[in-house]
Amino acid sequence: MVTRSRLVQVLRAPNRRIGAIGSASFLTSHSAASARCFVTSVPRLLSQSHAAQHLAKLTTDTYPEIKRDAKFASLTAEDVAYFKNLLGGDQAVIDGVNAAAEDDLKPFNEDWMHKYRGQSRLVLKPGSTEDVSNILKYCNDKKLAVVPQGGNTGLVGGSVPIFDEIVINMGRMNKIHSFDEVSGSLVLDAGCILEVADQYLAERGYIFPLDLGAKGSCHVGGNVATNAGGLRLLRYGSLHGTVLGMEAVLPDGTVMNDMCALRKNNTGYDLKQLFIGGEGTIGIITKLVIQCPQRSAAVNVAFFGVDSFKKAQLAFREAKQQLGEILSAFELMDSRSQQIVHEIKGEERPLEGDHPFYCLIETSGSNGDHDNEKLEKFLEDVLTKEIVTDGVVAQGESQAKALWSWRESITECIGHGGGVYKYDVSIPLAEMYSLVEDVRERMGEAGLIGDAEEHPVSAVVGYGHMGDSNLHLNVAVRRYDAKVEEALEPFVYEWIAKRNGSISAEHGLGLAKKNFVNYSRNDTVIGLMKQIKNLYDPNGIMNPYKYI
Amino acid sequence: MVTRSRLVQVLRAPNRRIGAIGSASFLTSHSAASARCFVTSVPRLLSQSHAAQHLAKLTTDTYPEIKRDAKFASLTAEDVAYFKNLLGGDQAVIDGVNAAAEDDLKPFNEDWMHKYRGQSRLVLKPGSTEDVSNILKYCNDKKLAVVPQGGNTGLVGGSVPIFDEIVINMGRMNKIHSFDEVSGSLVLDAGCILEVADQYLAERGYIFPLDLGAKGSCHVGGNVATNAGGLRLLRYGSLHGTVLGMEAVLPDGTVMNDMCALRKNNTGYDLKQLFIGGEGTIGIITKLVIQCPQRSAAVNVAFFGVDSFKKAQLAFREAKQQLGEILSAFELMDSRSQQIVHEIKGEERPLEGDHPFYCLIETSGSNGDHDNEKLEKFLEDVLTKEIVTDGVVAQGESQAKALWSWRESITECIGHGGGVYKYDVSIPLAEMYSLVEDVRERMGEAGLIGDAEEHPVSAVVGYGHMGDSNLHLNVAVRRYDAKVEEALEPFVYEWIAKRNGSISAEHGLGLAKKNFVNYSRNDTVIGLMKQIKNLYDPNGIMNPYKYI
Repeated sequence: MVTRSRLVQVLRAPNRRIGAIGSASFLTSHSAASARCFVTSVPRLLSQSHAAQHLAKLTTDTYPEIKRDAKFASLTAEDVAYFKNLLGGDQAVIDGVNAAAEDDLKPFNEDWMHKYRGQSRLVLKPGSTEDVSNILKYCNDKKLAVVPQGGNTGLVGGSVPIFDEIVINMGRMNKIHSFDEVSGSLVLDAGCILEVADQYLAERGYIFPLDLGAKGSCHVGGNVATNAGGLRLLRYGSLHGTVLGMEAVLPDGTVMNDMCALRKNNTGYDLKQLFIGGEGTIGIITKLVIQCPQRSAAVNVAFFGVDSFKKAQLAFREAKQQLGEILSAFELMDSRSQQIVHEIKGEERPLEGDHPFYCLIETSGSNGDHDNEKLEKFLEDVLTKEIVTDGVVAQGESQAKALWSWRESITECIGHGGGVYKYDVSIPLAEMYSLVEDVRERMGEAGLIGDAEEHPVSAVVGYGHMGDSNLHLNVAVRRYDAKVEEALEPFVYEWIAKRNGSISAEHGLGLAKKNFVNYSRNDTVIGLMKQIKNLYDPNGIMNPYKYI
Repeated sequence: MVTRSRLVQVLRAPNRRIGAIGSASFLTSHSAASARCFVTSVPRLLSQSHAAQHLAKLTTDTYPEIKRDAKFASLTAEDVAYFKNLLGGDQAVIDGVNAAAEDDLKPFNEDWMHKYRGQSRLVLKPGSTEDVSNILKYCNDKKLAVVPQGGNTGLVGGSVPIFDEIVINMGRMNKIHSFDEVSGSLVLDAGCILEVADQYLAERGYIFPLDLGAKGSCHVGGNVATNAGGLRLLRYGSLHGTVLGMEAVLPDGTVMNDMCALRKNNTGYDLKQLFIGGEGTIGIITKLVIQCPQRSAAVNVAFFGVDSFKKAQLAFREAKQQLGEILSAFELMDSRSQQIVHEIKGEERPLEGDHPFYCLIETSGSNGDHDNEKLEKFLEDVLTKEIVTDGVVAQGESQAKALWSWRESITECIGHGGGVYKYDVSIPLAEMYSLVEDVRERMGEAGLIGDAEEHPVSAVVGYGHMGDSNLHLNVAVRRYDAKVEEALEPFVYEWIAKRNGSISAEHGLGLAKKNFVNYSRNDTVIGLMKQIKNLYDPNGIMNPYKYI
């Protein structure tokens, strides 16, 4: 399916083959309208195939040290009646207090990785900002704890309850309100699914400035609440720059309307920034204005193998320099991650044999010929310099999707075992992959890793957004095991703190990292954060037991 | 000096001339190392030539309704002794309490436009974060009001005192600490001059993500404190996205150290965002980490005349589409603005005759040939479609600088009369220029505008960053006049509010817009902002009488 262009041979017989790099058989630009692979939504896929064997332990059993805060009220039949009356019926209220609705509540109580399971008896699905405001006001007055929930695709347990918190699921607020085709500003509800928004934009020649594997399920509100980074950050920057406007509801029901659709607006403190990455702890995002870039007419994807992490770094430097303004992604995958995707999906691999590392490069530009020429020159160069060992370039959209799937399917495939300890971290580039090697060694020394069933750890895998110094360290396990966790934590966090990295690059803190914030933030800053939390949510009802 | 390529003739004789557009005589890429015009620092230039006739009225005379807040202490000789001891001598302390230092104090008390003049008797120049912390702690304990000051190039009176506030000038904290040539992250003091930082980066193949006319004087700390937008926002986005890390000192002396140098760091609330655009009202920024993009190998500048604002909009749409990823600026200038620059500077104009509007386009890319081809095709297209009437393309760096100076000199040249009422606003693009026309008409109806000395208003001028819907409305006056101000305000603000624009796009609020925030923000949001101010600065010592 993907042309096997043995670039290593090109290198060895330069006269004959290098000339061919520029030919149609190596490089073909294609329409970017939907070039990125649309993986099946992660939660759906996993819950179908693994629901039975993966019923998560209750979070309270996994973390018995977390105690329910007695200041919170317990839900009463009267409360449920209030919400039913407010939201008008069954569609918007899933009631586990009066009715037996265990199965209906399950998807809202549990994360898709089956690592966290809460005990909520009530799910509310507001249909408007006013609904959200009324819900929060009531909960704040009655001291009922709540968990805001988007697509529930998070990786740190931030979007599911722990005890009996009320789930406020934003799925019904999913309207796209307007789009300005000159300025590129998109106005939409927080509950819109990212992929739906991106497809809407594709039809208008624009692109959502954020892209990530869970795009088929995640909500844009959740993306903003967790300050998701994803695959396009290298090119389009962070949501702190691309979110132009926001409407959010504070715990006391106050609606903060800052729906500015302009790129420049310096009229006082930019309060919405606190909600970007605030993980639903100081309010619920209900509407957004997003600055969307134009969709590129031409997209190219190249996938190649390199002999070492050192060479991957060299390839990145060359790509930045030579591809400049058209470089839209530079992704890294290690050997083990690609073996796992191959084992689970059974598809033919893009390159023959095994390479220690793989890189995926995407270019997006307005002129296919120009982009081809730049990419061709770059590839020729990294071959000549022996930076790259072997590689392929996608011809057309379906091949580009196929190449992307080798990167985007890692998260899903690695989850097919008993479980995964996931670390999403930022580390200065030179040392980025050393963490994976050190963790692998540590697991070996502790006798925790191996092919036999007795070893809890089956693989230590590293991949991520090399362009952003963002590594995903995944420790795949046959079963969750306290010994593994003890070997990993605080080791991983200490390792990162020593290198001034971030223990939480793009996945957020949630429950998973609540106790480790001090590895990336000093006490003063943590104190200032708690001040903000107390200012907006003095009763502490918003997403309790998590974040900071 | 600039080649007169009468593109209008090209249009009329397409067979002969269009072919020439691509030739070296029309388009030449040049090194981008220092392509942008480095105008002489604005404040220095004006204070030299106009200091005598332009001694500003005291701000307290202009705005007698502003009263000194009695809660603030008055400076004593003891206070001055404390600061002299703390900062060690004369270089760091300009003392108007004990010594007669009127002339020494003047540049710190007055803005460069001679519109605002304060009465501070003490200027402190800290040399370290510790100094800043000690100064603020002392002032906070003693209830002494302060004004943080960078390059004092602001346009809204935000960086000068009103009464006897102590000026904390950051000019001595001007070190560049480090630069990572792989990731592009720059660590520097807040008091670094923007142009110095940009030149440092130029030597390393990088560029500061912000550029503006006052670059020769303004401080990066002031840029961040006012969330300056400038000429490159269209390409590199806002400072909310490009400031990676910050160190700031709170009013009580607490040092908030969030000097993260990584692109992704989701570890709690992003507090530094409140200081971006906070205008020194909740703390003083002392250090920064900036994400810097690579400098483009090729930069082209084109300058053309169009018949109407409608056509300028069409040209912008075409530029966005056809130049895509290489478009780095799209600036608009009206006819009057260019006449004024011509009158003051006396230089030959880039185009013959008068055109109702002028546009300046800049492209920045990694491949000069590709960029030339794109720009050539774009120019051919806008000529064929009769969107553009006449134009020139810079050949080489000095011509590019010269073309830029027709845009960048407007601010300086228009200030050569008695004064300027300046409005920096965002308006949805379709209506952006109508504000200038409506204000001009209003001035005419009121008999306030004319060529004779009796008319206070000499010109109503519009220009700005069209790519960001950001208009600079300038009303040039022979003398400041209450009648003009009454005709302008709240008219301008009401006009903008009706169109959901922003009354403060990139210059900030300062003193000038303090009373007009409600035209762009609702009461709820203003209330939330005041809450933040009170949280961080309960004694209100930071930059009082301004902002919100």
